[in-house]
Amino acid sequence: MTSRPRFVTPGVRAGIVVTGTEVLTGRVADRNGPWLAEELRRLGVDVGRIVVVGDRPDDLVAALGHLRADHDLVITTGGLGPTADDLTARIVGDVQGRPSTLDAALYDTVRAIVAQLVRRRGLDADPEALDAGSRKQAMVPVGAQVLAPVGTAPGLVVPPAEGRSGPPVVVLPGPPVELRGMWPAAVAAPAVRAVLDAASPLLEDTILLWGTLEADLAATLRRIEADLVGLEVSTCLRGGELEVVTRYPPADAGRVDLLRRTVLGDFPTGVFSTDGRTVDDLIGDALVARGWTVGVGESCTGGLLGARLTARAGSSAYVLGSVAAYHDRAKTSLLGVPPELIEAHGAVSVEVAEALADGARRAFGADVGIGLTGIAGPGGATADKPVGTVELALVAPSGRRRRTVRVPRDRQEVRTRSVTAALHELRLLLGDGG
Amino acid sequence: MTSRPRFVTPGVRAGIVVTGTEVLTGRVADRNGPWLAEELRRLGVDVGRIVVVGDRPDDLVAALGHLRADHDLVITTGGLGPTADDLTARIVGDVQGRPSTLDAALYDTVRAIVAQLVRRRGLDADPEALDAGSRKQAMVPVGAQVLAPVGTAPGLVVPPAEGRSGPPVVVLPGPPVELRGMWPAAVAAPAVRAVLDAASPLLEDTILLWGTLEADLAATLRRIEADLVGLEVSTCLRGGELEVVTRYPPADAGRVDLLRRTVLGDFPTGVFSTDGRTVDDLIGDALVARGWTVGVGESCTGGLLGARLTARAGSSAYVLGSVAAYHDRAKTSLLGVPPELIEAHGAVSVEVAEALADGARRAFGADVGIGLTGIAGPGGATADKPVGTVELALVAPSGRRRRTVRVPRDRQEVRTRSVTAALHELRLLLGDGG
Repeated sequence: MTSRPRFVTPGVRAGIVVTGTEVLTGRVADRNGPWLAEELRRLGVDVGRIVVVGDRPDDLVAALGHLRADHDLVITTGGLGPTADDLTARIVGDVQGRPSTLDAALYDTVRAIVAQLVRRRGLDADPEALDAGSRKQAMVPVGAQVLAPVGTAPGLVVPPAEGRSGPPVVVLPGPPVELRGMWPAAVAAPAVRAVLDAASPLLEDTILLWGTLEADLAATLRRIEADLVGLEVSTCLRGGELEVVTRYPPADAGRVDLLRRTVLGDFPTGVFSTDGRTVDDLIGDALVARGWTVGVGESCTGGLLGARLTARAGSSAYVLGSVAAYHDRAKTSLLGVPPELIEAHGAVSVEVAEALADGARRAFGADVGIGLTGIAGPGGATADKPVGTVELALVAPSGRRRRTVRVPRDRQEVRTRSVTAALHELRLLLGDGG
Repeated sequence: MTSRPRFVTPGVRAGIVVTGTEVLTGRVADRNGPWLAEELRRLGVDVGRIVVVGDRPDDLVAALGHLRADHDLVITTGGLGPTADDLTARIVGDVQGRPSTLDAALYDTVRAIVAQLVRRRGLDADPEALDAGSRKQAMVPVGAQVLAPVGTAPGLVVPPAEGRSGPPVVVLPGPPVELRGMWPAAVAAPAVRAVLDAASPLLEDTILLWGTLEADLAATLRRIEADLVGLEVSTCLRGGELEVVTRYPPADAGRVDLLRRTVLGDFPTGVFSTDGRTVDDLIGDALVARGWTVGVGESCTGGLLGARLTARAGSSAYVLGSVAAYHDRAKTSLLGVPPELIEAHGAVSVEVAEALADGARRAFGADVGIGLTGIAGPGGATADKPVGTVELALVAPSGRRRRTVRVPRDRQEVRTRSVTAALHELRLLLGDGG
């Protein structure tokens, strides 16, 4: 949902081809497309379209042709494995008019890497199979630039053959660690550099809101739309948070500032971040600033709140831990929740959430205790407590907060959304001074 | 990585357009493409390509044109919101030769839904903004079939205008809950039905392996490749697990059976599932069959192992809970790990992993205890314990298991991979009888 990009400068555009039947069929979520889009954005390159294809040659050819037509750079990910069916390198070469041949030096390199891998892992691998794989991975389109392997697969930069037009194609491996490791070399390749030199880096401004309705935000944006002409402003609702992201050339900084001030003016309590920091960052920084620690007592989320709080590097400075008391007995034995309280109010109740928060604070010796109990479903609902009912309670030296949230009726959604809600309650608690 | 699909029957193919700058830029992961691919597969429809576009009209037009060329059905997701910049419906109508006009009945429907929503949530929304949004959502390409809203946005089935050729386009909303709720109506629409009638449902066979090298599996597949001609066999390495997925018409069942027996014969300990059940399913079922419960003591994963074990509906039958003892003090106070043990061997050590497992078993009164401690990074590494070193220990009535795993040097990867490794150790422990 983007405000109509009326006069966005065309700029430099890249298209991305993600290969792999496992991605196409949804067995694996693609992590490369988004990562590349973000890296390209920093370089001032817009991603126009991403095409996901399986491992059928015809589809890969069609995708390359589709993106070549109106992009300045094409990047492919995946399909560089040792098996004969990983066809990306050869097909890109064919499309660019550069047939593939064995690169003897690269063959030696790949063989050495594979030999080391097999030795290090103590694997009992068939030498003939390994050699066939290495040979395949060393087939290079004539005149292409080889990007040194990070895993076993080399990458490629394949410009169109002499006398042909069209963008260069960068061929990167599928495993995210390999792709990311190879990216600096891809960016530095002369054929890529030549495209990037035409790009003017764009800045990005992000406003994050919590508890604001998308329609109300849209009304605000409409009110100032005359001032936003030419800016690419996109709004997006994600896990209950509303994001306003603006991409702009440096000259438009003044208008972006107006946008920021207007949104802040209309939603003073809704806006929680204007500097790119997430709610995770904000609570981490606030806890560090106060020298406070946090302990969690959670139930239906089974450890997800603890996992989220510790996902951030450096979180050991303020997270002591979490007890996921999935069974009621554990609520009592580990967090001291009285069985009578559970009996009287039910495990999903304000009272039990508070007892979990107090119990976690005590058990971990933490400054802040968080209690979370809810009905993730599909079972467990009652007449007055439908699936998605979650009780949150927080206790800190500065006071208490509690809140009942109702989130969509899907087990995974209930769990992730209630964790996000807990983080925002913690943010609000920390913002209340103390 | 698919074995070359030499003679795959063309069959019925669908293309998917995912719209949204937030997806293109990676701020939001698309959940609709994979879900649709799976639903279509069940109906015997192959997904050829998925194209992700932002909210630029030209890119949407290009994506529709690209997929129309060699697909029998095109499905779009997203871009149906109330804001003027959500352009999918209008553009699909234009591409199919069907200009949009206001559908008065639909306008009433949408207004009523929006009014109820505002009332229920107690929102203070601008009536004019809401009405503009409802009116926009009620614009329908002439002759298109309207799919009743699940949220506020109606869906559409838009066949090409009279005298034009090309596939029908199904227009679905972006929020996954709305898309999924609308899918049955889309499938039942006559224009879609006509396409689906030509499809012959494909079966899918999945073999899952753990601890097997991809190159070795490739060698096995090469050995029997003459028997696999015409089958679409794809292999994929995911989080340390290796997947072999075969899609086939019912007549090929015998050859798929041969494939399954061959892989099982070559990798008798590697193969852990041939019936589609995941490692999560296997351990859940095994724990239920034995009537055993499990308790977890984890450290660097911060609750992720507990969260994974409880992600499955019905897991309360066998998971009692998890203590994420992120701080060493919590390892002692909640799980009884002696401070001297941590002092002597370090928090990341076989000894502490065993003490966590024993402590969790005791603290939760569980049959099985799992201990997990490791270095997720970026800090915390020592000379002999690099980032990615994880110690796993399990204790059960039938015995003990322990294992040191080394996973890639990325905080998130270390955490998720070590959780998967813990699940496999639990699977092996449960498979050992007892």
